Amino acid sequence: MSLSLEECRDRIRTELDTVVDFWLKHSHDTVHGGFFTCIGRDGTVYDELKYVWLQGRQVWMYCRLYRTMDRFQRPEILEAAKAGGAFLRRFSRVSSSTSQWKCAFCLTRDGKAVKIQRTIFSECFYIMAMDELSRVTGDKDMQVEAEQMMEQLTHWVQVDSSGLGRPKLPGDIPTNSMAVPMMLLCLVHQLTQDRGQEVVQKYRELGRWCVQQILQHIQRDGTAILENVSLNGAELRGCQGRLQNPGHALEAGWFLLQYSAEQGDDELKTTAINKFVELPYQCGWDKEHGGLFYFLDVDGHCPTQLEWSMKLWWPHCEALIAFLMAYSQTKKPELLDRFFHIYEYTFSNFPDAKSGEWFGYLTQDGKVALDFKGGPFKGFFHVPRCLYMCERMLDHLLANRG
Amino acid sequence: MSLSLEECRDRIRTELDTVVDFWLKHSHDTVHGGFFTCIGRDGTVYDELKYVWLQGRQVWMYCRLYRTMDRFQRPEILEAAKAGGAFLRRFSRVSSSTSQWKCAFCLTRDGKAVKIQRTIFSECFYIMAMDELSRVTGDKDMQVEAEQMMEQLTHWVQVDSSGLGRPKLPGDIPTNSMAVPMMLLCLVHQLTQDRGQEVVQKYRELGRWCVQQILQHIQRDGTAILENVSLNGAELRGCQGRLQNPGHALEAGWFLLQYSAEQGDDELKTTAINKFVELPYQCGWDKEHGGLFYFLDVDGHCPTQLEWSMKLWWPHCEALIAFLMAYSQTKKPELLDRFFHIYEYTFSNFPDAKSGEWFGYLTQDGKVALDFKGGPFKGFFHVPRCLYMCERMLDHLLANRG
Repeated sequence: MSLSLEECRDRIRTELDTVVDFWLKHSHDTVHGGFFTCIGRDGTVYDELKYVWLQGRQVWMYCRLYRTMDRFQRPEILEAAKAGGAFLRRFSRVSSSTSQWKCAFCLTRDGKAVKIQRTIFSECFYIMAMDELSRVTGDKDMQVEAEQMMEQLTHWVQVDSSGLGRPKLPGDIPTNSMAVPMMLLCLVHQLTQDRGQEVVQKYRELGRWCVQQILQHIQRDGTAILENVSLNGAELRGCQGRLQNPGHALEAGWFLLQYSAEQGDDELKTTAINKFVELPYQCGWDKEHGGLFYFLDVDGHCPTQLEWSMKLWWPHCEALIAFLMAYSQTKKPELLDRFFHIYEYTFSNFPDAKSGEWFGYLTQDGKVALDFKGGPFKGFFHVPRCLYMCERMLDHLLANRG
Repeated sequence: MSLSLEECRDRIRTELDTVVDFWLKHSHDTVHGGFFTCIGRDGTVYDELKYVWLQGRQVWMYCRLYRTMDRFQRPEILEAAKAGGAFLRRFSRVSSSTSQWKCAFCLTRDGKAVKIQRTIFSECFYIMAMDELSRVTGDKDMQVEAEQMMEQLTHWVQVDSSGLGRPKLPGDIPTNSMAVPMMLLCLVHQLTQDRGQEVVQKYRELGRWCVQQILQHIQRDGTAILENVSLNGAELRGCQGRLQNPGHALEAGWFLLQYSAEQGDDELKTTAINKFVELPYQCGWDKEHGGLFYFLDVDGHCPTQLEWSMKLWWPHCEALIAFLMAYSQTKKPELLDRFFHIYEYTFSNFPDAKSGEWFGYLTQDGKVALDFKGGPFKGFFHVPRCLYMCERMLDHLLANRG
């Protein structure tokens, strides 16, 4: 393995340009606003539905690139972000008897609600979009809207989830599902970063709570991260309790690393690296074919998810960020070796040399199983966020090299 | 290919015995009643949740075997069916404000509701179970209960679906999804077979309606069966409208063949064979690796279902029944050739020679992807129903051979 930091940085930089160009070219709906997200291998739109997670994520990503990277400070990117934000504000919230803040999961091309999920995730990405857009445009109303929706979200998660619309059933035990505190911690970071003490103070307790909720997923005497635990942090019975999602754990890992750096919490940093970065890589890496499994069962049973052994793009994106962040914070060479190892697999298998952007779904042995570039759950988010964050970290490492 | 009808019949007969033994041995919950359905490769229960579809299906299958095949007229089978029926009646119905008939999708081991689907399928399998159990036990109450639930179901499908609990959304266009008329036609057959004219009469119109609804799925000038169409039989936009599910079409094929035989409707028989048996086989068979794809897009786009290219056990079960029934009704040798072709693939890939029963989920190239014998959607149903029906058809063909 003869990779260097420069090589990686240069490849990542080029790749980010290609990916941004792909979405700028193919995903904008200039008639109804918002973004097409079902985009085939060569850029063809194969379905006009607009998935709200992906609308919010694309607005966020455009704004972040525009705001923090000189070469993306292009008017077309800002205009696209604003148009996407306007589409979101106009169409994604669906009135309900219990809340003015519930968002749809999926909209028609012209913005009519098709489906609502009884979870918080559409709302999470709405918040990310609004907050980041407010930073670019200086529009305080959007920031206020993001914080108001955050208040509703926190209420659903911490106080009363009935507004989400799930019927209460006697056998449906309340669960601490890792996605929820992870997303909330990500939002706390989003809402508070570089903002004044008042905002920081407002979300301090929530941030602590999220970390504590995430840490509950360390189970089996510290040997495993489990995706679902009980509300008091005990292991749940059955498949649900034994489920592992290495990509999710790795993503939580870099959220925790980011948080521990802000707080100067070295103990948390060590836990994040050992338990949420190293451990999921150890148990999630496919020793035979390479790549990270999508799901695993901690006791070695076969997961019931049909796609458990597939290699998805996003866990690899999260792993790259996690290991490079862990290395940046510690300078331990073995963490950089891991980064290079994951980098090799990722860049050998996911990018599409022919039409640009990345394939999302490979078989266990690395063949392309689904060849589209965008789908109901793959948009302009994990790939560019990974490339963006890695480019910045590599720039920083290279600039500060002895 | 040197297969003979005798060989197939003998193998199928042996296989049915093995499969029945597997579930008799591993799936009975003697403490709480009902059946475990999450059963690992070797018979180990890896999750205690009880999926209602599979509870109903297992009761139905035990009863059908007990009632119609001498060698399964064993007390342990009858007792298991009765115990399963008692569990279903006691626990599966969940009270709601709008209906006394809504069933849960999933229960805890001791019968507490964990999840409710906003569809009709748990109720469908409840009806199948109750009706067949009433035939074995002579319990008229169960028959009445089956018919009462059928009335509720028909109301949800034909008059007002609001009792299912799905919010009405402006972008969510009402759809004729093939599963619905298929299941209702299957239930009409179940409730009326060998029953008096009064019952037959009661469901005659519904049967006709189901057939007409199923035939709406013939699209593209008769060249494709599409899984979802509009309520007036037009093609829907996007992925949903282009979706093909060859196994489902084949299953609908033999439901239609059964119906056309009862009605003496030769035109329907021809349509069933050409459009619902031959066509899905032609477009659904993987020319490279063999086996039927799970999902396809009629325009050749990549389906968004991650499992689209996997080979599942049940489409192959349905294909075997469909081609053997088509051959039995027509004696056209090319239909028997197809049966043998599918038989070869199926019996070479799905049965587990080591621990018995069949694997359910193979990769596109035929490797076992998930090795359990029972899971949330695989129980004691498609495999034994296929073996049972094929054995009977083969017996009949062999007995009536010149």
